[in-house]
Amino acid sequence: MKQKATFITLEGIDGSGKSTIIKHLSKLLKSEKANYLITREPGGSAFGNKLRKLILSSSHIKHPLTHPLLFYAARAEHIEMTIKPALSQGTMVICDRFHDASHAYQAVHHNLDKHLKTLDQWIVADIQPDLTLFLDAPVELCFKRIAKRRKLDTFDQQDKTFYESVRSRYLARAHNDPERIKIIDASQSIAQVCHACYHAIQPWL
Amino acid sequence: MKQKATFITLEGIDGSGKSTIIKHLSKLLKSEKANYLITREPGGSAFGNKLRKLILSSSHIKHPLTHPLLFYAARAEHIEMTIKPALSQGTMVICDRFHDASHAYQAVHHNLDKHLKTLDQWIVADIQPDLTLFLDAPVELCFKRIAKRRKLDTFDQQDKTFYESVRSRYLARAHNDPERIKIIDASQSIAQVCHACYHAIQPWL
Repeated sequence: MKQKATFITLEGIDGSGKSTIIKHLSKLLKSEKANYLITREPGGSAFGNKLRKLILSSSHIKHPLTHPLLFYAARAEHIEMTIKPALSQGTMVICDRFHDASHAYQAVHHNLDKHLKTLDQWIVADIQPDLTLFLDAPVELCFKRIAKRRKLDTFDQQDKTFYESVRSRYLARAHNDPERIKIIDASQSIAQVCHACYHAIQPWL
Repeated sequence: MKQKATFITLEGIDGSGKSTIIKHLSKLLKSEKANYLITREPGGSAFGNKLRKLILSSSHIKHPLTHPLLFYAARAEHIEMTIKPALSQGTMVICDRFHDASHAYQAVHHNLDKHLKTLDQWIVADIQPDLTLFLDAPVELCFKRIAKRRKLDTFDQQDKTFYESVRSRYLARAHNDPERIKIIDASQSIAQVCHACYHAIQPWL
């Protein structure tokens, strides 16, 4: 029996099926009467949701550190207002994206690894996830899923190169921390991906 | 003749007369046909103004680093979108509060000096003010001015202690960097304070 509630994060590039899987996992956990909370980043607190809106509506950002600083500010409040209180009450927390997403997405165009590590030490140090599920699928497949959803036909080469980098950065983090980050083959059917995720979570229930 | 335009910041606790002095200085500079821009923090860019609203409307912040991260995110955009472009076009920039305010205000309750120094290295390093005018006045006098403006009668002891700390932190920074930070006696009349500020700015015109 674990004493402390478990903190689980789900990661993956857009189109990896994260949102769908979280919905299915939620149903499964509900049917098992598990004590859990599903939350997401950026957001997860009243202030975080305001900041999420601001971040998503701000396209003309010029300084490479502006987005990381905003995401970690939202993360700090998310941790204090939502994640820590839930964990301390024995509630398992499942979070749609967390600090791995900052490392995967925000350092693609600029060398910000050192800055992100510092921000991790400041904000995330005492609240490392116990388990991270990285839903991994080829970029082409993710693009097809997004295109279907958004009724888009094409993605340009710039998008492709960007998402290939994001995927590589996620995979590199997974290989560097295999104890925490489990790679889930997200090119499988929803049922199969859901089963694999549930199988990984089960020891923590 | 200076090659590069001058970057000047004005600092002071609430009630020190900063806004009034800036208005008067602006008139003086206008009458001299000086090429100048007045801006402020947090704010100073479209994005910064949105963030300013968010910061000022967020009273229930729990993590001590949330506000510093937000202020430096706003500052990063302010520098890139407003300050650097103006300076590079030869326009003198006068900014109502800058990084000294973060050091004076945001580290009063928590030991964040190391964090703020790191944020300075990341964001402010290449855009240090040439001159900073610290409008200094006793906290009691500043309180009286604010009370008059806001039609308030009293300030509690907690406010007093807080603003005494902010003032001390400003003064300590001024003593550590006397070449850049000039202490202006803001307990004098508006005309006197304005004259002292103009006198300090004049060599840079």
